[in-house]
Amino acid sequence: MPDPGRLELRHPGGATSIRVGAGALAAALDELGGWLEGRTVFLVTTPRVRALHGRAVEPLAARAARLVTIEVEEGEAAKTLDRAGELWRRMLESGGKRDSRVVGFGGGSVCDLAGFAAGAFLRGVEVALLPTTVLAQVDAAIGGKTGVNLPGAKNAVGLFHHPTSVVCDTTFLATLDPAEVRSGLLECVKMAIVLDSDLLAVLERDLERLMAADAEALAPVVASAVAAKIAVVELDPAEAGPRRILNFGHTLGHALEAVLGLGSLQPGRSLRHGEAVGWGMLFALRLAERRGRAPESAERARRMIERFALPPLPAVAPAALVAAMRKDKKAREDGIAWVLPGRLGEASLDERFDEAEIASELADFLAEAGPGAAGGR
Amino acid sequence: MPDPGRLELRHPGGATSIRVGAGALAAALDELGGWLEGRTVFLVTTPRVRALHGRAVEPLAARAARLVTIEVEEGEAAKTLDRAGELWRRMLESGGKRDSRVVGFGGGSVCDLAGFAAGAFLRGVEVALLPTTVLAQVDAAIGGKTGVNLPGAKNAVGLFHHPTSVVCDTTFLATLDPAEVRSGLLECVKMAIVLDSDLLAVLERDLERLMAADAEALAPVVASAVAAKIAVVELDPAEAGPRRILNFGHTLGHALEAVLGLGSLQPGRSLRHGEAVGWGMLFALRLAERRGRAPESAERARRMIERFALPPLPAVAPAALVAAMRKDKKAREDGIAWVLPGRLGEASLDERFDEAEIASELADFLAEAGPGAAGGR
Repeated sequence: MPDPGRLELRHPGGATSIRVGAGALAAALDELGGWLEGRTVFLVTTPRVRALHGRAVEPLAARAARLVTIEVEEGEAAKTLDRAGELWRRMLESGGKRDSRVVGFGGGSVCDLAGFAAGAFLRGVEVALLPTTVLAQVDAAIGGKTGVNLPGAKNAVGLFHHPTSVVCDTTFLATLDPAEVRSGLLECVKMAIVLDSDLLAVLERDLERLMAADAEALAPVVASAVAAKIAVVELDPAEAGPRRILNFGHTLGHALEAVLGLGSLQPGRSLRHGEAVGWGMLFALRLAERRGRAPESAERARRMIERFALPPLPAVAPAALVAAMRKDKKAREDGIAWVLPGRLGEASLDERFDEAEIASELADFLAEAGPGAAGGR
Repeated sequence: MPDPGRLELRHPGGATSIRVGAGALAAALDELGGWLEGRTVFLVTTPRVRALHGRAVEPLAARAARLVTIEVEEGEAAKTLDRAGELWRRMLESGGKRDSRVVGFGGGSVCDLAGFAAGAFLRGVEVALLPTTVLAQVDAAIGGKTGVNLPGAKNAVGLFHHPTSVVCDTTFLATLDPAEVRSGLLECVKMAIVLDSDLLAVLERDLERLMAADAEALAPVVASAVAAKIAVVELDPAEAGPRRILNFGHTLGHALEAVLGLGSLQPGRSLRHGEAVGWGMLFALRLAERRGRAPESAERARRMIERFALPPLPAVAPAALVAAMRKDKKAREDGIAWVLPGRLGEASLDERFDEAEIASELADFLAEAGPGAAGGR
């Protein structure tokens, strides 16, 4: 069993301790207990996570002065201003103070919401995140981004508020829906393509074990993806520049989510975040091709993504997607910036295209990505 | 005419440029214009401020790509999550992006709300504050605190988001209700008692001209109060310790506001912020006396406050005030901390009292502060 790794993310306000591994939570319990000792603690979670994994955090309740569990919906449904407002009112009514603690225990939406609630409650209380999905472990919980959605605009309201600690226990991932595992692994693929070609090799080699949510196989992949993200975030904590490399696949990805409806965990729903990013990566690779970027790297990246057998895209108007991209918070006054991969482990961050060119490429791309073309072009 | 002073507040994320003086806005227009040149700009203001002073900011509209004016209510009524949500939706619908700019133009509530909206929109856009009340010029606009209220809890939701620049033009103060001027000057008195005895001497000497909102007399007082606040904030940007000296008078002050209803500008309303702080200072001076603190300084401070002829306090139960203090965000798990002045320009920050003792002192104090005892004890 790999030793639950311990990583650190240094940021302007201090440092986040990050543990990754199969059994990482058990290993972190004593430290977490000390952090919340004698405090009022708000555990933000979902009914499902509480039912599946609640026992794992029970030892924390004994250390707190009192632990208030606040349940929220699964998925993006929880990431609203209304829900944040409810959390704040609950926290206030339950005697929350500046030295209270928040613990986010769940997927990316729970982490984003709990982080936001903590960051703005009394102008900021400390938070720890215990992510329970691949996506949350490699992305949402790492880097201090928090937020909620506005109608049609993901993460439109939020702030940077780094957690004090993050525990990525890969044993939690065994209870995930396989489609959720796939969605998270696609974010790992994203990191691999633009930041870490060694990680890409591991993903290529272990994909079957990873898709089966094997905690031992997942631990080093999650650790590598977290390490890659840490390096980028430390370079650029406020996302002023280099951090935008992580937006690879997200320009179209976020637009797909905005237009098709934000993903949730209900069966039959349209598109998960990682799937949207998967399609977004394929489209960005296509744009990279138009600019003559390293074709062999692009081909290898594409083959990797195609192994995930993305669900086909429903019919959607290119103009609606372009409009959504323009509204995305990554957009600036001077237009939409694209992250285009070059050789594996590299990318350029600020590629511009004419909107008409994008709309025309999108029309072709969507024709190939429709119901008749499941699994990528 | 005093030269519009230029001050700087250094904070972990950079520096805020602060101009103070009669005519400071005219002097700052060119610099502000450069800052928002070619951007989407959201001007957050009130109908009253727009009607009275809107022409002063017209030159900025010509420099922006487009300027969207968003009007909000006067006073605390604007500081709600709902209003913040409306701002965010308006900003998003109007094409707000990460490089957009927010300008808060109004009193403390407008500054707090505009700063909060800017700080959390797309995880933070730049904001400039043009405060139009004494209180906002010396307090709300300085130091990066932003926020909105929850029912019964002032500033319960917010964040630290330092403005890029602040312009305190004392000519705006001439149109204020005299009670509003008095309220702001009481915050200056607060700064003077615990931080700057020279400022206290100026206040004592010029009180009549100051109460008449003489822009030339106000400029150096505002500049001194701002300078005192800058020194404290630079020492302690996240309010981890020394900055709490600014809470002098606010422990009871905030509780009075919470219990009596937050102040607004409607005639006949209960208590303005500065008035609540005035009563809070008198109570803190009384507690300081119990601990045997410098009695001559306390007596001089009390005489200064009494010259403001505070409106009497309505009947209110001591227990309700103690409960509100306990809920205040300044409270910690181990109880309510009091800021008690010592010699002029000094205070101790973390004085503790038994809650029963506070309740008993409060009962006596309130009896003396009631309708029969206008103007202080």
